Amino acid sequence: MFLDKLHAAKTRSMGSLCVGLDPHADRIPERFGSGAEGGGRFLDWVIDETASHACAFKPNAAFFEVWGDAGWRVLRRVVRRAQETGAPVILDAKRGDIASTARAYATAVFEELKADAVTVVPYMGEDAVLPFLEAGGFAFVLTLPTNPSAEWVVDHGDPPIYLRVGELTRRLSERFPGQLGMVVGATRPKEAVRLHALAPGLPWLVPGIGAQGGDMVALRNAIGAAHPMLVNVSRAVIFDAQPRIAAERTKARIKEVGG
Amino acid sequence: MFLDKLHAAKTRSMGSLCVGLDPHADRIPERFGSGAEGGGRFLDWVIDETASHACAFKPNAAFFEVWGDAGWRVLRRVVRRAQETGAPVILDAKRGDIASTARAYATAVFEELKADAVTVVPYMGEDAVLPFLEAGGFAFVLTLPTNPSAEWVVDHGDPPIYLRVGELTRRLSERFPGQLGMVVGATRPKEAVRLHALAPGLPWLVPGIGAQGGDMVALRNAIGAAHPMLVNVSRAVIFDAQPRIAAERTKARIKEVGG
Repeated sequence: MFLDKLHAAKTRSMGSLCVGLDPHADRIPERFGSGAEGGGRFLDWVIDETASHACAFKPNAAFFEVWGDAGWRVLRRVVRRAQETGAPVILDAKRGDIASTARAYATAVFEELKADAVTVVPYMGEDAVLPFLEAGGFAFVLTLPTNPSAEWVVDHGDPPIYLRVGELTRRLSERFPGQLGMVVGATRPKEAVRLHALAPGLPWLVPGIGAQGGDMVALRNAIGAAHPMLVNVSRAVIFDAQPRIAAERTKARIKEVGG
Repeated sequence: MFLDKLHAAKTRSMGSLCVGLDPHADRIPERFGSGAEGGGRFLDWVIDETASHACAFKPNAAFFEVWGDAGWRVLRRVVRRAQETGAPVILDAKRGDIASTARAYATAVFEELKADAVTVVPYMGEDAVLPFLEAGGFAFVLTLPTNPSAEWVVDHGDPPIYLRVGELTRRLSERFPGQLGMVVGATRPKEAVRLHALAPGLPWLVPGIGAQGGDMVALRNAIGAAHPMLVNVSRAVIFDAQPRIAAERTKARIKEVGG
């Protein structure tokens, strides 16, 4: 379901750009007003501007939660509005808890907000992921983060933790085909190669291209052209004065390097 | 600040019971009504019933998020109502993301909801924790989970990941004294001993006593009487027909075994 929508949106947008909707409260242009409503108006505009170049949208729950219940109202509206473009919506929520709690998060994400996919954090192992799959949704498991401070955890051990998580994700994908992917940061091509070898067919959500200094060329050179991925860019697109042009340019640049 | 409130509430309640507020939507007694408002009325009653036996309350965000924006409205009200008893409120949110996102989560937890403390997931390392400390809040870092499926991640390596996370937490506590604790499951006394040795002064939030089969006697026998902790019980208290009696009994049982 998610993958079908994604495939159609990739064909339509002729690219693999996922537009990250991170409405940092203090960066929303003044003309849209402030608070949750201002953020909502801003994102309505960003979605309209970028729709023809986006194969997916990824709202980040944190930037809506700063506005409390008003933020959640806007988030639900943004999910629907983004879906009206035909693109699937990935809720970047990084939820991760024991099964009974994860079931409630799955209800919130797939029934209340009606997102198509979610990001989850695997510190608690399989329990943290399963309920999202059992609810029929798609889960991108946070496997290889972009930030250097994550290395204290994810690079530890032999094999390192990120490969253990990759293995867990691959194993789950056998039971829930078409419902799993990984978050694999563009900042670490050498490590990404090992995840590619482990599960060459599992789609990646790739953050870290823009503000975080990731290198798409190095990543594609490392893993080859075939691995399915969608490449997320947030700030560099949505806070550009002309998001449409920024999205088109970003999409083209990603395509150039085989994204 | 959190620790001052906690200390006062421990003295007043004469115990270390943390009441977990997990309003599973399908377990709320009919007389309170349904949906977010029913959940809110139920928790108002639970808080009143258990206030004299609780040294802290721990609402779990997931069970409010199933109700979307209405759930967040109720969550904010529940935080305030619980604080009116004098007890501090720990938002069990298990957030964990890169710094710019974690800063937004910290704003949501400490400014919007005005909770006293939060639970965080350390898969992304220091970045996932720091923003909560810089915001002046208290963070319980998920270190040793209760659920067996977490072992795939947290027991891996030598030293195992849960000790790496314990070490990270201890290190952060030197820069942010009085702002850090760990979540340490009661289901794993042998492993808890190693965390105790690593940081004997860092307070623990201990889940897993009730529904998850943890053994408080074994835990205290293993670590000794001095380690500061608060023991969370959710379902066994709040879904008892008489939460006041259940809380008093649970508090006494915890005290008996040195909790």
